[in-house]
Amino acid sequence: MDEPALRQLFDDVRAGVVTPDEAAARLRRLPFADLGFARVDHHRGLRQKVGEAVYAPGKSSEQCALIVRELLSEPGGGPVLLTRADPAQVAEATAMAVGGEVTATGSCATVVWRPAEVRPGRVVVVTAGTADLPVASECVAVLRAYGLHPDLLADCGVAGVHRLLASVDELAGADAVVVVAGMEGALASLVGGISPAPVVAVPVSSGYGAALEGVTALLAMHASCAAGLTVVGIDNGFGAACAVARILL
Amino acid sequence: MDEPALRQLFDDVRAGVVTPDEAAARLRRLPFADLGFARVDHHRGLRQKVGEAVYAPGKSSEQCALIVRELLSEPGGGPVLLTRADPAQVAEATAMAVGGEVTATGSCATVVWRPAEVRPGRVVVVTAGTADLPVASECVAVLRAYGLHPDLLADCGVAGVHRLLASVDELAGADAVVVVAGMEGALASLVGGISPAPVVAVPVSSGYGAALEGVTALLAMHASCAAGLTVVGIDNGFGAACAVARILL
Amino acid sequence: MDEPALRQLFDDVRAGVVTPDEAAARLRRLPFADLGFARVDHHRGLRQKVGEAVYAPGKSSEQCALIVRELLSEPGGGPVLLTRADPAQVAEATAMAVGGEVTATGSCATVVWRPAEVRPGRVVVVTAGTADLPVASECVAVLRAYGLHPDLLADCGVAGVHRLLASVDELAGADAVVVVAGMEGALASLVGGISPAPVVAVPVSSGYGAALEGVTALLAMHASCAAGLTVVGIDNGFGAACAVARILL
Amino acid sequence: MDEPALRQLFDDVRAGVVTPDEAAARLRRLPFADLGFARVDHHRGLRQKVGEAVYAPGKSSEQCALIVRELLSEPGGGPVLLTRADPAQVAEATAMAVGGEVTATGSCATVVWRPAEVRPGRVVVVTAGTADLPVASECVAVLRAYGLHPDLLADCGVAGVHRLLASVDELAGADAVVVVAGMEGALASLVGGISPAPVVAVPVSSGYGAALEGVTALLAMHASCAAGLTVVGIDNGFGAACAVARILL
Amino acid sequence: MDEPALRQLFDDVRAGVVTPDEAAARLRRLPFADLGFARVDHHRGLRQKVGEAVYAPGKSSEQCALIVRELLSEPGGGPVLLTRADPAQVAEATAMAVGGEVTATGSCATVVWRPAEVRPGRVVVVTAGTADLPVASECVAVLRAYGLHPDLLADCGVAGVHRLLASVDELAGADAVVVVAGMEGALASLVGGISPAPVVAVPVSSGYGAALEGVTALLAMHASCAAGLTVVGIDNGFGAACAVARILL
Amino acid sequence: MDEPALRQLFDDVRAGVVTPDEAAARLRRLPFADLGFARVDHHRGLRQKVGEAVYAPGKSSEQCALIVRELLSEPGGGPVLLTRADPAQVAEATAMAVGGEVTATGSCATVVWRPAEVRPGRVVVVTAGTADLPVASECVAVLRAYGLHPDLLADCGVAGVHRLLASVDELAGADAVVVVAGMEGALASLVGGISPAPVVAVPVSSGYGAALEGVTALLAMHASCAAGLTVVGIDNGFGAACAVARILL
Amino acid sequence: MDEPALRQLFDDVRAGVVTPDEAAARLRRLPFADLGFARVDHHRGLRQKVGEAVYAPGKSSEQCALIVRELLSEPGGGPVLLTRADPAQVAEATAMAVGGEVTATGSCATVVWRPAEVRPGRVVVVTAGTADLPVASECVAVLRAYGLHPDLLADCGVAGVHRLLASVDELAGADAVVVVAGMEGALASLVGGISPAPVVAVPVSSGYGAALEGVTALLAMHASCAAGLTVVGIDNGFGAACAVARILL
Amino acid sequence: MDEPALRQLFDDVRAGVVTPDEAAARLRRLPFADLGFARVDHHRGLRQKVGEAVYAPGKSSEQCALIVRELLSEPGGGPVLLTRADPAQVAEATAMAVGGEVTATGSCATVVWRPAEVRPGRVVVVTAGTADLPVASECVAVLRAYGLHPDLLADCGVAGVHRLLASVDELAGADAVVVVAGMEGALASLVGGISPAPVVAVPVSSGYGAALEGVTALLAMHASCAAGLTVVGIDNGFGAACAVARILL
Repeated sequence: MDEPALRQLFDDVRAGVVTPDEAAARLRRLPFADLGFARVDHHRGLRQKVGEAVYAPGKSSEQCALIVRELLSEPGGGPVLLTRADPAQVAEATAMAVGGEVTATGSCATVVWRPAEVRPGRVVVVTAGTADLPVASECVAVLRAYGLHPDLLADCGVAGVHRLLASVDELAGADAVVVVAGMEGALASLVGGISPAPVVAVPVSSGYGAALEGVTALLAMHASCAAGLTVVGIDNGFGAACAVARILL
Repeated sequence: MDEPALRQLFDDVRAGVVTPDEAAARLRRLPFADLGFARVDHHRGLRQKVGEAVYAPGKSSEQCALIVRELLSEPGGGPVLLTRADPAQVAEATAMAVGGEVTATGSCATVVWRPAEVRPGRVVVVTAGTADLPVASECVAVLRAYGLHPDLLADCGVAGVHRLLASVDELAGADAVVVVAGMEGALASLVGGISPAPVVAVPVSSGYGAALEGVTALLAMHASCAAGLTVVGIDNGFGAACAVARILL
Repeated sequence: MDEPALRQLFDDVRAGVVTPDEAAARLRRLPFADLGFARVDHHRGLRQKVGEAVYAPGKSSEQCALIVRELLSEPGGGPVLLTRADPAQVAEATAMAVGGEVTATGSCATVVWRPAEVRPGRVVVVTAGTADLPVASECVAVLRAYGLHPDLLADCGVAGVHRLLASVDELAGADAVVVVAGMEGALASLVGGISPAPVVAVPVSSGYGAALEGVTALLAMHASCAAGLTVVGIDNGFGAACAVARILL
Repeated sequence: MDEPALRQLFDDVRAGVVTPDEAAARLRRLPFADLGFARVDHHRGLRQKVGEAVYAPGKSSEQCALIVRELLSEPGGGPVLLTRADPAQVAEATAMAVGGEVTATGSCATVVWRPAEVRPGRVVVVTAGTADLPVASECVAVLRAYGLHPDLLADCGVAGVHRLLASVDELAGADAVVVVAGMEGALASLVGGISPAPVVAVPVSSGYGAALEGVTALLAMHASCAAGLTVVGIDNGFGAACAVARILL
Repeated sequence: MDEPALRQLFDDVRAGVVTPDEAAARLRRLPFADLGFARVDHHRGLRQKVGEAVYAPGKSSEQCALIVRELLSEPGGGPVLLTRADPAQVAEATAMAVGGEVTATGSCATVVWRPAEVRPGRVVVVTAGTADLPVASECVAVLRAYGLHPDLLADCGVAGVHRLLASVDELAGADAVVVVAGMEGALASLVGGISPAPVVAVPVSSGYGAALEGVTALLAMHASCAAGLTVVGIDNGFGAACAVARILL
Repeated sequence: MDEPALRQLFDDVRAGVVTPDEAAARLRRLPFADLGFARVDHHRGLRQKVGEAVYAPGKSSEQCALIVRELLSEPGGGPVLLTRADPAQVAEATAMAVGGEVTATGSCATVVWRPAEVRPGRVVVVTAGTADLPVASECVAVLRAYGLHPDLLADCGVAGVHRLLASVDELAGADAVVVVAGMEGALASLVGGISPAPVVAVPVSSGYGAALEGVTALLAMHASCAAGLTVVGIDNGFGAACAVARILL
Repeated sequence: MDEPALRQLFDDVRAGVVTPDEAAARLRRLPFADLGFARVDHHRGLRQKVGEAVYAPGKSSEQCALIVRELLSEPGGGPVLLTRADPAQVAEATAMAVGGEVTATGSCATVVWRPAEVRPGRVVVVTAGTADLPVASECVAVLRAYGLHPDLLADCGVAGVHRLLASVDELAGADAVVVVAGMEGALASLVGGISPAPVVAVPVSSGYGAALEGVTALLAMHASCAAGLTVVGIDNGFGAACAVARILL
Repeated sequence: MDEPALRQLFDDVRAGVVTPDEAAARLRRLPFADLGFARVDHHRGLRQKVGEAVYAPGKSSEQCALIVRELLSEPGGGPVLLTRADPAQVAEATAMAVGGEVTATGSCATVVWRPAEVRPGRVVVVTAGTADLPVASECVAVLRAYGLHPDLLADCGVAGVHRLLASVDELAGADAVVVVAGMEGALASLVGGISPAPVVAVPVSSGYGAALEGVTALLAMHASCAAGLTVVGIDNGFGAACAVARILL
């Protein structure tokens, strides 16, 4: 229920079309569809720019598919996403709701329905190593769903800093940069020092031992000496894409 | 051995029916049945309101079944529960002790024998997301065993706060509320601010990366700014139900 | 703004006393007083049973005093509390708002204005050791502010379990029990096994080394084998009292 | 050394003004002033939009003052900041470099020289409690140095969610929002669900016990269910301001 | 109340000297003296071999002194100890209860009243470095209170392993060994490999950085490859002495 | 090389049977057999009372079998143990070295060759729950290998404290007690308060969530208020048995 | 692009062979081959002495093979390594690039192409137990790739310190020592006290419970009382070998 | 007792000058001086290259002075160091043992007696920020004590990577590099990628919040993608210097 609808309600009360008691009851209700196991939020796109994305883990294949179908039922709506889906969830969702585009992201997949038109905006997604590619792929798939088509620079870790410096112009001229890095996450500090753009860092759970499944990279990115770096959760390529969407959309 | 039995013992001593030495020995013994691998506590219901529940992990199927049978052997006893049971444990227990009602709770199950009569008491179980449903299901099954039939509000996470506000009357009027939430657990703080009822929060191990398998939610619920919130252990839907039973029974 | 006020607003709209636009604006505003540095919540008592308590740390003495005065300005309101106040904060608050009753709680203090009438309700606060008394004192002071006058059982730690068993009747007959324990926190499990009442456990940061400033007790209480135990934050005697108030008020 | 300067160097080599060996040596040197104890970076503003800020802790008062003076020595430069300075550092720096504007931020201070002109851009800084104000103040002081004049909404914690909802229009219409919150940090999730703007969350080390000096809030913000939230380090109001500057400048 | 007293109670009941109701009430009471703020346990020596020791931190000087006096009031009792006492606590306790012997243990002190007679038993207390001496001193003072007079071998850390090997006979022939070591705690593994005696390891919070205030030593001692090593809490020289008393008394 | 052998060496030097250079070389060598992948220690029994036990994880089945065979090759030696062996390791070791007695301990097994004669000594192994039995079984098997035949008291957790009190005489009269407990580990504190014997506590990794795979129990046991409790590593039933052997052998 | 190439570029600019704009572009490019998913660094050997090693986890078999082939395509290059490869990765890489020598290292393998000539240098790799051998094997394989042929001393843990002392001459005379140890890692301290050579310690994730998957050993090695010990990451046999190569090559 | 002395002992036995029993006793004794509170190791320089350094914290001023005097009493000995000394310790040690050179290192000091002659060896100590200088100063003072006179490059953090690249020749040509860095410690990875020399990284406890008092830098350095980096303990400038001494002396 947006601002105009709110004013309409009061007009209806004044006009006697709606009783005050009915209005009071309705005011507490914002629009969502209750499927019993889920309360599907049709207006998230209005409130957060990015539409509702269905996070697959912990949901049955049928639940995934039903929520996607519900979201697609609203005519004229924006992109709909299913993230971290396993093959069974992908199969059932794409069967029940045709037209989904599937991107493999490591051992799971991202599915996109009704992708947005291509928008302007120079976004760069840069990874420290090849092992960071699945998280970067999720980020790229979500950005594309929202109409942003990023460049992907893979394997620019600081152990060979010239590999990053080779792309210094691209980084300096970007509207937003996403840095995807596991192990010690030092690439984020370096990019933050090179580029004036908003930099969103994604710690990755790759690496072993002292990498502590991404916690080391997360802490290091937060302790970074590069001013104005921001961080999203471990392996959260989806979140990084949404952060960029909040900035550029 | 309760208060009247204790007085009877002393009467018997005075009457010469029991010798002082026998009485001294008996006084150290409260009632339980020793199965060798388990000391089955027949009076837990008297001491804690909630009867003995058999926690299945780490026990063989046969051990589970034997303990359940022992508990059911006491005539006139209250509800008997088997929690976190795998399919083999469920099969053997329900074969040896008929009449058990099975509720699936994620990858395991809760079984209830001799459920209590329905009691009054408005209990609301609210979850942040669909992935929290297995823990909520365990909580609901245990509450029903004790005669409390809660309402379940699924998928009310704070990212779309209007979904929670839609149920504000139900929360405000409850006698007790259980909040089941993983990830950052913020739903507990919000419910604590809306409802004057006792609020029991259950951190859930769903989520990934920085959710640290429920530790983040547990810490966040404890650091909550909502006064008087209480917390049970990670994924402990059973414990939350027992806490409500202590309050309402 | 409660339910009747909401209906009145709609009546006013229908009667033309309030325009729809004005009503829409007002509906988003629930009652609080904005002091610039604080938004004082006059209706918290209605929503949470326990009135707004001012948490002193991080606030200047003047800020504490001004918020207390603002809360007391509402005629007919309930108890007002200032918690964890240092001597300067206590001095300024009790000077600006007369009638506050001060209870020392370790190195800081709890101040109560307008305490509630004495209510029925048998509450027991039990501590493991003498070092837990400051936290227990805060809990007792807050309970008394809400009209509950608990019994305090000090120094009942499990190293001499008979000291606890001596009070078994009092624990078994309570309406609610608060267990305040540092070090390993085992007292909570034991009380949970003895009493059928709601048991709220408060981990305390006393102890040294492996006690990890209360984290060990907090974890141990959550891993407790006693069913239905609930836990509040470390040293949070205030929170435990509020939890009891939610149960008994 | 920027792009045009680089081309000039090659022209000079071709013209014989500079020998190839001299050019090779010069190419490795980007501009900074070496004070012995510090390498002052005069071109950081070009690379990162935000000029070099001097982080005071661990530096002597004289070192702080000398670095500030060096930074101000570049004519036509942008804002210069001294952050987290203690009174002695503030005194020596403002004596050696006149014109600094001092903002108290808790027990330390932020000093700004040559603040930028006021720019357009609706920035909102919102705090969960009064105890979060020192961190918010640092953020506001730094934003103002860069020409952004944010609105500050204090004390909007989720325990009284209506206090936040009262400012929903302001949040929904912002170009960027900074959420400053300690304890469980739930306010960030809530704001992320209400506002479509970029949201930068700052965990604060206020709170006690299970708040773990800000680690709980940091983890909770990263595990947030609100998509596209980004996070900076604990108590890092400076970093949040720089992140906003990267977005809006 | 020991076994004979229990039988006497039943004889009294049979003889009509005590009514059954009185006996039931008395049976729940084991002997302790309730000082209000403490329940002083007069029979701990019988149950645990080591008498009640008063842990000073968190208690007022007066509380310390009163508990000590109460413990000394029992004629024929064993040793009484006050541990971790600050100068004010020492002063008040030794004034109210004369005859206490004070041992400095770092920044605090151990006071012993009524030390036991010297007993046989070869106990060795070995430290890794000079910085471990305060913890070792507490251990030695407590052992002497119980009549055990240990040899103290200081500064035998593994960086110069020959310093330890010089005492190999003494270690091999001991009845019990206490190893006091901070930093990485490797000395415990080494002693465990050399001596067949019971070895009690005490991790010490000395060291800095990665020593994590004793947590590293505690973990390392638990992960030790030397079979049969046991560990007490960080800095817990008192606990190690009690463990030896349990073995040798 | 023990004391007499050392004197013999010097006699041989004086007699000219051994040259000084040969003696210097030999002195650095204590007896072990080098298998290439392992240095088998034939004199550990002399130094530590408990013979060398082969820890199976990380070794191939053949390596396990070869080390066991080497240890058994010394005539007149003491018990030989293989711990934490998987079925393949058990099979190869018992085939190559006949006479091994296999005890199942959860998902792995303990094998004992040449068990010692039965010795006197009352040892009690007490567990909190049925899920702690695998760890207790390892402890019992190792104790029996050394000739100690303990009583096993299963399922005495503090949630029903009377189950423990029923065995109070047995605990009070023991020469050593091993407490095996997961979850919050409170049983150790309770036993420590009841029994004057040496108490060795074994934290168990059973439980879930806040039990943190045994870390909670380990910390809680170290923070215990029961004086003189000692602790071994998580799930280390073997280590507890060796600690008892150091005390009683 | 090394120093002479840089001078050549300037000569070419002066000679007019290269335009300044072309030179400016080229200067930002150091040599690597971009395969799309990887930026293969051909000059790492020049910068770090040790050539580029391909870390297999997270890469597809084809990606591993293509990177190895690219690295081998440079004529006259040094050793090429593939580390932590699973059987499929080994198979595809050795098929596409013949001549690779495979060393099993636990559940994965190290493959070496174009090993260096044997160099002088006495390196000792010492392990605490048999379970540390896989990590030690990786270290040995990498050292051999660089021409260093170490001696391997297995199973020298401190529980039988004479096993280490037997090799004291070898350790004292080494040019570099690598200590590979899990559990409590005490072997590193001991070796550091015996040998004057550079000592590189590798914590190993073997052990269980309190070993915390190598974190305990890592912390203990860092808290070591042996001066000048250095540490690499958990299980990082490759890193230890590279550290030795930096010292001796 | 070195090798020749050992042979002399055997000659003396053969010659009858020393009895076998006396020799056996002496063989267990390597040379150290027992001051009661410390076992001063006169031969550490022979075994570890670096002489015994006295770590001041936890020692009284008198103990520091006495140990230093004892170490200096050996004629012809090497450098003697007192590290982390507070002003009182410095005063007493330099009074009792004249000729000590004092270097301030943050809030404490390093004192050196009998520094070694200047040796060849290009060592570079590089710090990320000015706040890392105290740790770097300790490292430099210890290196100079051993005759190594390093170059110090301060304030080369990666936020302005050109500041580091300006010193690339010096780093590439060094014989050993020490990197001193707090916050996220990324400088170590970068230096490791640029220089082929042995690189010893020192994590520093500067920084705040997510820097976790140096733990973040320590973990990040261990998770570094730069091969062959080694790490010493947090703030351990002394250890880094000793590691370099092991390499270059």
